[in-house]
Amino acid sequence: MSTALEQHRLYRMTHPDSIAMFGASNNPSSMGTIILRALLAFRYPGKVYPVHPREKEVQGLKAYSRVGELPEAPDLAVIVLPTAIVCDTLEECGAKGIRNAVIVSGGFKEVGPEGAQREKRLVEIADKYGIKIIGPNCLGITNTHSRINTTPHSYRGNPGFIGMVSQSGSFVTQMFEYLDQFGLGFSTAFSIGNEANTDLVDCLEYLGTCPHTKVIALYVEAIRRGREFVETARKIVPEKPIVALYVGGSETGRKAALSHTGSMSGPDALYDGIFRQSGVIRASSITELFDLCMAFGRLPLPQGNRVFIQTHSGGPGAVAADACGRAGLELPSPSDQTRDALKDLVPATASIKNPIDLTFTKDVMQFFSTIPAALLSDPLCDLLMFYFYAPLEMIKRALIQIGVSKEELDKNLAGVLKSIAQQMKTLITKSKKPVVCFSYHNTSEPAVKALFDNDLPFYEGPERAVRTIQAMTTYMTLKEKIAAQDKAVQAGQTQASP
Amino acid sequence: MSTALEQHRLYRMTHPDSIAMFGASNNPSSMGTIILRALLAFRYPGKVYPVHPREKEVQGLKAYSRVGELPEAPDLAVIVLPTAIVCDTLEECGAKGIRNAVIVSGGFKEVGPEGAQREKRLVEIADKYGIKIIGPNCLGITNTHSRINTTPHSYRGNPGFIGMVSQSGSFVTQMFEYLDQFGLGFSTAFSIGNEANTDLVDCLEYLGTCPHTKVIALYVEAIRRGREFVETARKIVPEKPIVALYVGGSETGRKAALSHTGSMSGPDALYDGIFRQSGVIRASSITELFDLCMAFGRLPLPQGNRVFIQTHSGGPGAVAADACGRAGLELPSPSDQTRDALKDLVPATASIKNPIDLTFTKDVMQFFSTIPAALLSDPLCDLLMFYFYAPLEMIKRALIQIGVSKEELDKNLAGVLKSIAQQMKTLITKSKKPVVCFSYHNTSEPAVKALFDNDLPFYEGPERAVRTIQAMTTYMTLKEKIAAQDKAVQAGQTQASP
Repeated sequence: MSTALEQHRLYRMTHPDSIAMFGASNNPSSMGTIILRALLAFRYPGKVYPVHPREKEVQGLKAYSRVGELPEAPDLAVIVLPTAIVCDTLEECGAKGIRNAVIVSGGFKEVGPEGAQREKRLVEIADKYGIKIIGPNCLGITNTHSRINTTPHSYRGNPGFIGMVSQSGSFVTQMFEYLDQFGLGFSTAFSIGNEANTDLVDCLEYLGTCPHTKVIALYVEAIRRGREFVETARKIVPEKPIVALYVGGSETGRKAALSHTGSMSGPDALYDGIFRQSGVIRASSITELFDLCMAFGRLPLPQGNRVFIQTHSGGPGAVAADACGRAGLELPSPSDQTRDALKDLVPATASIKNPIDLTFTKDVMQFFSTIPAALLSDPLCDLLMFYFYAPLEMIKRALIQIGVSKEELDKNLAGVLKSIAQQMKTLITKSKKPVVCFSYHNTSEPAVKALFDNDLPFYEGPERAVRTIQAMTTYMTLKEKIAAQDKAVQAGQTQASP
Repeated sequence: MSTALEQHRLYRMTHPDSIAMFGASNNPSSMGTIILRALLAFRYPGKVYPVHPREKEVQGLKAYSRVGELPEAPDLAVIVLPTAIVCDTLEECGAKGIRNAVIVSGGFKEVGPEGAQREKRLVEIADKYGIKIIGPNCLGITNTHSRINTTPHSYRGNPGFIGMVSQSGSFVTQMFEYLDQFGLGFSTAFSIGNEANTDLVDCLEYLGTCPHTKVIALYVEAIRRGREFVETARKIVPEKPIVALYVGGSETGRKAALSHTGSMSGPDALYDGIFRQSGVIRASSITELFDLCMAFGRLPLPQGNRVFIQTHSGGPGAVAADACGRAGLELPSPSDQTRDALKDLVPATASIKNPIDLTFTKDVMQFFSTIPAALLSDPLCDLLMFYFYAPLEMIKRALIQIGVSKEELDKNLAGVLKSIAQQMKTLITKSKKPVVCFSYHNTSEPAVKALFDNDLPFYEGPERAVRTIQAMTTYMTLKEKIAAQDKAVQAGQTQASP
């Protein structure tokens, strides 16, 4: 029995067994060549057939002068050709039996009326043969699990859990490296360009069925089918969160979007309404978009908005508390039971209010295990914010103090960092509550890298952590609201039926 | 003739020729020892006299059993002793002729009425001898130019231009590493603790006179002398910008501040008023605080709020335009003259609106020189936002395409990155307009590091860049307003005098 994913009409597009490649050559600087190389570098496991009018071999692969000569009808055509010959090429693809195409070439609707006419012809050809198109004027598909990548950027990083639909190719390709620093990656990402006959809603629906996708990110300049968007999103949201960055809401953003992809955007209030109805969480920047994805993919959801803050530094604790307050999160004082449990673990100078400010770390291992475990076991705590300040030098000093030799240290440091991260992970697994680490380290700090390697989130600064926590609590509410509304509708329908 | 800095009453405190060190020993884990080591590691050029009741030598330095035995009265005492003996030690310091003290020890006002009593006695002793105290309950002073550091963290990075006054020690010490990633550093930073007889206003005034300080950053939980704060800040603001993070404005922030340093903060509106009157720019996070410092210290001020955005990626351009619009910045279209100048430099697909989207880079050197120079010479442009996307792999590929060999490349890559950064620097010098680089690179990307090495700002994401631009335009307005008000007051006084 095939899965929902396999039954989806975009499944072949994102899982092709074979690809016809148009526009690649032996000229290393042509876009088609760069794309073919990135595809091969990704170790795409299927067959690739370069189609080139003159070359016998392209990038080490046997080339064919016309698509009609191919020994089979490939699952997908990737077209990176001059605008003028794109339509005829698609016609030949259709005649050969190809039913999926990624059209990277530009020069269509985005360049004005003449281009729009050309795009109309493209769609007519597609309709005639039943071809699904991603694009034109796009970078296409990156499916890290089936190892297909039609973009000019080599994929960097591991297969991941973020499904992406983007009205900008840059926010797919330029994010490979950005996400990799957090140990994150795309499951499948779509750069959809002009959306000739496959649009944001289609891709969103596809990602809803994709089991590798734990959270869906959208970069939106305009939604063309508002009603279908709402319906599709509402079906997905009870299962997985959707986050969206929308830029067409300001006058300057609207103009830029128009000039970028020719899309007609609408005012912020309209899109806020669409997102609210859909259960989609709106992000205010690309950074925030992926900050939210990181938490949604790596943490259990909090059952409420009561946050405990563990710190050993007063200032960062105060800043975190302030950020929580401004975001409407609650900071209850720990229960008497928790205070009793902590009494012997913390220094005399510690303040067991909230923030729980230990002032300094008496025992580095208790700091990362017993103490946060006691806090998480408090029924007043829905979520722990953890000031994760762990510079390499400090960790080394702490270990030398407890008698570890310098040689042992150099050998075991990676092990120590891993064990700290795993302790944090265990806290989450045992308590089933989220632990959100933050500090001012950047993502290259070794202790932070160890968190990422163990699938834990970390945020630079409490404000980014707090915004993420706020989004998680919002998602809990949205999910429940949609479920309740759907139930009410179903009940109504049941009553109405005979 | 001595400078204003040399005449300031805190000058000896931050430029001591000799230090008496209390609390350091040969126990490597004691706070006093860690502080002494950090001081020595910083190559403090003056004399250090450890005072210890039993040791003959401390950390390789001759030790003295009592302060009375020292061969001179040192300029500064650093006291890291158990609370109970701090007052008596200060008394002995006074008798010896010491007139400046950094008191790291806690156990005073911050722990309740008994501690407050103890602090009262401390101030009485100080008054008797005319001793200026930083602290107690603080980490003291880091003056990177005179190489003094009384904190337990080794200073990391170069001497810098950010003067800091902080009501949290962590926001001095933990920022050494944070700032270093941007090539930034402190000029002088004060962790002021309980402010027994030297407070935020005193340190602010000092930094106003410090020629190494180009911009002043404040971390504020409460301002005790509001009126003096306003007066002092207003004198400084026409010369250099002051930025402040205030956390006591929310209920949770207020409670955390109270528990942290025992300070009574006030509502946001009150502090907004104080800052507005003072000409101080309020930051909303530590990250933003130093983002603003980076621009103020490295860029000329913009003469207006009209921004040009140069990009080769549509999505990032649209996001930047949206962020500008939301921040009230203007995005005029380039003049006809600029369009003409650009015509031959940009690809046919380019859109010379605003964002100026080149769609791709025809010539990598023109991208970083001729094109932005043409934009900056447009009288409609007050400031250029530059989408600085320059991953190492892309730069390498571009150079190989223009015929650079792989060996040459490895040898010259640092030179190429430096030359790109220097071109950006030249753009600013010649146009006298700010160029603000942004993209989604992190600070460890080599091309970004090259910007920092050449004293240029860079921001991760357009939102952080835009917030900074907004702060620069606000500062221009504040400066002019204060100057106009002061002039009016002076004119009034002149009229009133006979």
